[in-house]
Amino acid sequence: MASKILVIGFPETEETELIITVDVLRRAELNVIIANLNDEEYFTCVQKTKIKADKLFKDVENDMFDAVIIPGGPGSYKVANNERLVNFIKNHDKAGKFLGAICGAPVIFAQNKIGEGGKMTSYPKDQEKIEKAGYVYDKLDVVVSNNIITSRAPGTAFEFALKLVEILVGETTSMELAKTLLYVQ
Amino acid sequence: MASKILVIGFPETEETELIITVDVLRRAELNVIIANLNDEEYFTCVQKTKIKADKLFKDVENDMFDAVIIPGGPGSYKVANNERLVNFIKNHDKAGKFLGAICGAPVIFAQNKIGEGGKMTSYPKDQEKIEKAGYVYDKLDVVVSNNIITSRAPGTAFEFALKLVEILVGETTSMELAKTLLYVQ
Repeated sequence: MASKILVIGFPETEETELIITVDVLRRAELNVIIANLNDEEYFTCVQKTKIKADKLFKDVENDMFDAVIIPGGPGSYKVANNERLVNFIKNHDKAGKFLGAICGAPVIFAQNKIGEGGKMTSYPKDQEKIEKAGYVYDKLDVVVSNNIITSRAPGTAFEFALKLVEILVGETTSMELAKTLLYVQ
Repeated sequence: MASKILVIGFPETEETELIITVDVLRRAELNVIIANLNDEEYFTCVQKTKIKADKLFKDVENDMFDAVIIPGGPGSYKVANNERLVNFIKNHDKAGKFLGAICGAPVIFAQNKIGEGGKMTSYPKDQEKIEKAGYVYDKLDVVVSNNIITSRAPGTAFEFALKLVEILVGETTSMELAKTLLYVQ
């Protein structure tokens, strides 16, 4: 059965990071649900795109997913102390599920000691914050450290999504998708 | 004053192509409006993302924009004969406004002889159709032919959006944005 993936949306999500990830994972036939952390019908992204969530967070927060993905944007810093979100990702981490974050969202992991001592990347300006929290910072487009997958910015979102497909489905599917998308030519 | 840009949404739009374009153009401080061709609150993209339009098409179809952008996806073939859309883009073409299309959407221009005789690119499978319609087909990621800007796929959408910024705002802004996005590093 296809893996179940939860992608978290919130006000000031970076829409390109969210949409590339959802688009590529769904093309890989994964079961992807976008949940609005604010329990509202729509969330307004940082560049003002309004996206309708598939589910409210309250309707999925007691479920277990194979992977949880958090896009970046200014909103990701604002939800880094959201108790419900933090509990949700801590429970998934304990269960060994995959956790993905891009851009500002790796800070959520760092602030909450998820994957502590492991490797991580992020939007460049957060390097110091992540290093001080006890992680090995790596400037690669995508960093995989046990069950934690992190990436840097909208411009690395295809690499992030294709790496997630490689992990969750397989390398062949990921490479085929990269060609279909003309991401590699 | 910032240029006014209309981005057309419709059922089965390719969401990554739409969102990258909107995100990058808004970062360049252009005034970007997403209009739903179907005059409904939101449109469901090909990979099932639901995007709320800023405007209904009927509310903007008598206005003139500095550029009109059409994303691809299976829906773009289905709207290629939409009389209201075709009239709208023909009027903009006559007025010398910029017209952009990516992936399947260049077929809309080809079927309606917009920019006839000029150069065009598209998703690879539409090459023959476009050549038969009397265009010079070019396999570059982005092709600029007078006022017509075309591109190929989700994987070329950053190039497409950054070229639009270069044309509408300037090369420096486009290059700075490419770095901010970590599209170039």
